[in-house]
Amino acid sequence: MKIKDIGGEFNLIDRLAALIPADHDEIVKGIGDDAAVLRIAPVPAPYLLVTTDTLVEKKHFRRDWSTPEQIGIKAAECNLSDIAAMGGQPQWMVVSIVLPPHIEVEWIEDVYRGIGHACRRSHVALLGGDTTQGSATVITITLLGSVLDEHLCLRSHARPGDHLMVTGSLGASAAALALLSRGMQPSPYLMAKHLTPCSRLDVSGRIAPLANAMIDISDGLGPEVRHLCTQSGVGARIAAASIPLHDDVKAAAKALGVDPLQWALSGGEDFELLFSVAPDRLAMLKQEGLLCHEVGCITDEADHAFLIREDNECIALPRGYDHFR
Amino acid sequence: MKIKDIGGEFNLIDRLAALIPADHDEIVKGIGDDAAVLRIAPVPAPYLLVTTDTLVEKKHFRRDWSTPEQIGIKAAECNLSDIAAMGGQPQWMVVSIVLPPHIEVEWIEDVYRGIGHACRRSHVALLGGDTTQGSATVITITLLGSVLDEHLCLRSHARPGDHLMVTGSLGASAAALALLSRGMQPSPYLMAKHLTPCSRLDVSGRIAPLANAMIDISDGLGPEVRHLCTQSGVGARIAAASIPLHDDVKAAAKALGVDPLQWALSGGEDFELLFSVAPDRLAMLKQEGLLCHEVGCITDEADHAFLIREDNECIALPRGYDHFR
Repeated sequence: MKIKDIGGEFNLIDRLAALIPADHDEIVKGIGDDAAVLRIAPVPAPYLLVTTDTLVEKKHFRRDWSTPEQIGIKAAECNLSDIAAMGGQPQWMVVSIVLPPHIEVEWIEDVYRGIGHACRRSHVALLGGDTTQGSATVITITLLGSVLDEHLCLRSHARPGDHLMVTGSLGASAAALALLSRGMQPSPYLMAKHLTPCSRLDVSGRIAPLANAMIDISDGLGPEVRHLCTQSGVGARIAAASIPLHDDVKAAAKALGVDPLQWALSGGEDFELLFSVAPDRLAMLKQEGLLCHEVGCITDEADHAFLIREDNECIALPRGYDHFR
Repeated sequence: MKIKDIGGEFNLIDRLAALIPADHDEIVKGIGDDAAVLRIAPVPAPYLLVTTDTLVEKKHFRRDWSTPEQIGIKAAECNLSDIAAMGGQPQWMVVSIVLPPHIEVEWIEDVYRGIGHACRRSHVALLGGDTTQGSATVITITLLGSVLDEHLCLRSHARPGDHLMVTGSLGASAAALALLSRGMQPSPYLMAKHLTPCSRLDVSGRIAPLANAMIDISDGLGPEVRHLCTQSGVGARIAAASIPLHDDVKAAAKALGVDPLQWALSGGEDFELLFSVAPDRLAMLKQEGLLCHEVGCITDEADHAFLIREDNECIALPRGYDHFR
């Protein structure tokens, strides 16, 4: 039986998770959010957060498109983004790297320089790791962090009536990938968004005390809204006209003859944050001077996640990208 | 410049570690022990332990020799062994797996059943992970645990005059590998030691309060003794005649015409524990009923690590296996 026969990656994860014990007194939230949440010391100590992300050569990066330093930055930032999405602060990292036998030392060092750059920016310290030989380069980072109880933002805490907000414009990383795949040169803005993404830890700490639910946008707005809906037992409506798109994304879409909303809804690796906020907190968000974009709202129709197009037609939001389909 | 040009894997790790910040108030011990040690809550709360290990197909396991369940057990146990070597208790795990595109679901599930089996045996809960597609199977596990201050066994705490002890006989895993590589069938004992190793958490908790330094034997007795010596600033003498060897290891060596001590000293993946204990604690160890084998002693000659052969000749202990040489 192949992974596609059981409905793809997400069903696989459910089946695998059932095979290993996952209950422990200290686990507040295990599988199914951006990071696991552990109560390791009594209140008022913060929760411990744990997340992991793997980058595989040719799947998540290409050596002819990215410098090794850019690959390192991306490997770190996709993990940092998960901690940001919980409302937490990242603290410690372990790095496991599988390297082909004849790799240049300078190349590996530059990957670590990139990881180090991201760690310095977010005040993260390296705890250790593993270095192994294999046929292709694989980088797995596990990141630990902490979050105060009152800052914790779970995917399951969205409430009907909440406003749905994003922290920045979407689709730029997917636009760059589309151009590169066709041998075209993306703009410097698009290139930076694709090759050296940056987590939104710069704003997540101020959003966290105000937000109900939060998630990072790594697979496109569509699937991330769906995750919030499924886990919160709610529905959502997104207004296409309100999804923020950078001019370079629009220009790239025009050049390729595609709809730029596709990239925002289903493209990956924007690493902006999607969060839900109660109506009475919206003003406080604005007072904080946070430049966020309202893209829709949470409804009480469980699992009904819709996009209202500019012609007022209502369509189902797209589901996630699947590595195995 | 290739990894072998800078002296191999261990020098690479030193160079890479220098590129990422590694100083943090809470880090008691970072890179360079079996696990990192963090002070995350005030005394008397235990330290947090963090370790990670990666298994790569064809390097650490072969599908034609191991069942998927055995691969899962091994992936978990090599991490559990690192927590045992710190004197700690394992608690939580994250599993990242890279899978080829057309892998059978049943195969992956059996890997997770193996991980689950090891987790159940050691009371470990799964926190989450990542599932990605790539050209070869790679399993990276990060394991968190805890250890009380008075149980913590660092590599750096060996003292001149300490007795050097091992928890079981050595070389069986390497003997099995040598036989399998030549198309010969190892005995059931050797097969079990190679394919389904088991961490020594069954005894580590009772050894920890008595030991000074401890390390798990994953690369052979020689390099592990050298690690203790380097980090403690001491020397060591090992008596060849006292290294415990199972009869099946001796028989395998005879069949292949090699010295079985080679496997004990330089073979990998025994996952027994090597520890040093002060003379006045030796009696307590025996009172505990722990079946340990004394293999040598710690001396004050920094970095002089010798093997006393049965003919009384004194030779340098072998250094570690290097993935990149």
